[in-house]
Amino acid sequence: MIDGLGGLADAEHGTELEEAATPNLDRLAAEGVTGLLEPVGPGITPGSGPGHLALFGYDPLRFVLGRGALSAAGLGVELRPGDVAARGNLATLDPSGAVVDRRAGRIADEEARQVVDELAEAVPGVEFHHEKGHRVLVVFHGEGLDPRVSDTDPQATGVPPLEPRALDPAAEPTARLVQERLRRIAEALEHEPSANGLLLRGFDSHRELPSFRDRTGMRAAADAVYPMYRGIARLLGFDVLGPPADLDEQGRLLEKHRDEADFLFVHHKGADAAGEDGDRAAKIAEIERLDRAIPDLVAAAEPGVIAVTGDHATPSQMAAHSWHPVPLLVHAPRCGRDDVDRFGERWSRGGGLGLRPSLHLLPILMANAGRLAKYGA
Amino acid sequence: MIDGLGGLADAEHGTELEEAATPNLDRLAAEGVTGLLEPVGPGITPGSGPGHLALFGYDPLRFVLGRGALSAAGLGVELRPGDVAARGNLATLDPSGAVVDRRAGRIADEEARQVVDELAEAVPGVEFHHEKGHRVLVVFHGEGLDPRVSDTDPQATGVPPLEPRALDPAAEPTARLVQERLRRIAEALEHEPSANGLLLRGFDSHRELPSFRDRTGMRAAADAVYPMYRGIARLLGFDVLGPPADLDEQGRLLEKHRDEADFLFVHHKGADAAGEDGDRAAKIAEIERLDRAIPDLVAAAEPGVIAVTGDHATPSQMAAHSWHPVPLLVHAPRCGRDDVDRFGERWSRGGGLGLRPSLHLLPILMANAGRLAKYGA
Repeated sequence: MIDGLGGLADAEHGTELEEAATPNLDRLAAEGVTGLLEPVGPGITPGSGPGHLALFGYDPLRFVLGRGALSAAGLGVELRPGDVAARGNLATLDPSGAVVDRRAGRIADEEARQVVDELAEAVPGVEFHHEKGHRVLVVFHGEGLDPRVSDTDPQATGVPPLEPRALDPAAEPTARLVQERLRRIAEALEHEPSANGLLLRGFDSHRELPSFRDRTGMRAAADAVYPMYRGIARLLGFDVLGPPADLDEQGRLLEKHRDEADFLFVHHKGADAAGEDGDRAAKIAEIERLDRAIPDLVAAAEPGVIAVTGDHATPSQMAAHSWHPVPLLVHAPRCGRDDVDRFGERWSRGGGLGLRPSLHLLPILMANAGRLAKYGA
Repeated sequence: MIDGLGGLADAEHGTELEEAATPNLDRLAAEGVTGLLEPVGPGITPGSGPGHLALFGYDPLRFVLGRGALSAAGLGVELRPGDVAARGNLATLDPSGAVVDRRAGRIADEEARQVVDELAEAVPGVEFHHEKGHRVLVVFHGEGLDPRVSDTDPQATGVPPLEPRALDPAAEPTARLVQERLRRIAEALEHEPSANGLLLRGFDSHRELPSFRDRTGMRAAADAVYPMYRGIARLLGFDVLGPPADLDEQGRLLEKHRDEADFLFVHHKGADAAGEDGDRAAKIAEIERLDRAIPDLVAAAEPGVIAVTGDHATPSQMAAHSWHPVPLLVHAPRCGRDDVDRFGERWSRGGGLGLRPSLHLLPILMANAGRLAKYGA
């Protein structure tokens, strides 16, 4: 799973994947079959939750997760009934209160942890957990809090954070509580040089999802550096390995645990982060870095069936997630073979798997693994 | 929207679009992405109503419109509850009563209007409105009339018109009333040289559809020469421009009203009419005529996102609508780019948008226009 893998070809360039040198992925594509996946629906830009759920066989229109719940699961923070969690971004505001940088200059982990510790001390009734970089999990404690509260992250610079509003009358008390806590948070951050704001999005409460094992009969394991992706996997009942610090460690974890799982989910974040930064060269470099790791990852996992794809597109021209289809390759003894011998959107378009919803992937992989019985007599 | 755009390649010829010289559409295709649309479902031949509804994002299996209701809306005739409307074709019958020409030799507007005036005078309890050419809107007045009455148009020559039958027991009185009125209509037309018959189809009553603006947040405007297409748009709450007389006027209307609408629907009828006549050369000429107008239309509308497609196929070999997929091109700054540099079915097949239901088009256009928020965290 190469996060944010999909790109956007324009008059000047192919997509990042098309232009990256990926001899190992190309070899898998040549020996296997390729196609394109549409994560949620035509024209729909997915968040990370829906993008992953679809690939794991959960209809993202039926199973909906807030980022708060995802972050909490990723950090192993158990939400109690009545709590409400949100994803916080440490951000930089200008003297007028407008957002200058939604990620506080991609603040370093150590500095961010200090800011989070100060917040925890200054603001009672709220839990703060540092995730990674500018990302913070914020848990509001209370009695019967209601997660139907709107984001304060304006998803833009040059404007001030939004006021949290109740999206349902029942959430009015929660919205008021969040407003009050945000005032204290603002006071506590006032003196910070860069991380002087906190933007909240994806309010959510405790959720139960049916387990992947119950749905598929497969034991699954997640091998991901970033907490949120471990969180998604944990919500579905995956064993969560590590945490690993980098691709090398991800490989070692695969080798160690490969016999304990039928389904191994390996997550690579860098391509998405570079795409969101609008850094085309960095996204290409991240894809090439993953490509170089492929032989080791394959040797470590000894998989019978390999799929390489993304949870959504993050074209560097847009510096954001987008709705464009995501390339897919499947490599297995019985996957068939098409005429495609390079991995990338323009070639995948003519591949043997066609253009499909991401939800189609899991049954195709299970079939290739000999795990689906004949339907009907 | 090139009505009836899709065609049928055979051993002798490509489709009409493939063989037409369309340098302007080819340029849009080269700079944008292409694909194929299936209007209603595999193997389903759509009428104009479902073909358009799908492109406007209304599931044509859920929202069903009779041609009578469409024609009434197109003419601005308000159907009262209890009325039943049908589309009438002035037709030529031979002395035995069999249909010789379902369109009365494509009777001229002026002659048709005279016939319609005579009908209005001779047949009480029925309203007749001339639409265009051989097309007439027929409204039956009554108390609680039921539209579930079968067509009298046999959709074939060499056979007599069909008797109207009740498709539900509740529609028996309506069917009897229509039978009685048709006898009077036949008497009134007896002496006509060519328009001596009237074929009815698409019985329907008053309907309410959810508005396009409520569903999409977009103000829409319709720029169409033919009343029925203005009618479809009016039923969805579009502003209906004009009416324009031809493509030139359609361009002028676009320029004048472009700032009042977010979504501009431009309808070109000629390709469908020529296809229905089985006139291959005329259909090619109509497509080429539209192609020549493209630069002016684009300059007039200044669109951020352009889509060119059809509501259904009308292959001239079949002289009728058909189920074949319809070519699509989308041109926008972030639409992506495929390897297709000509507009036509055989090239669109390998395009970046793939083969999709027509219902997918609107969300893709809205995404390209930056009008859809991210789904999920």
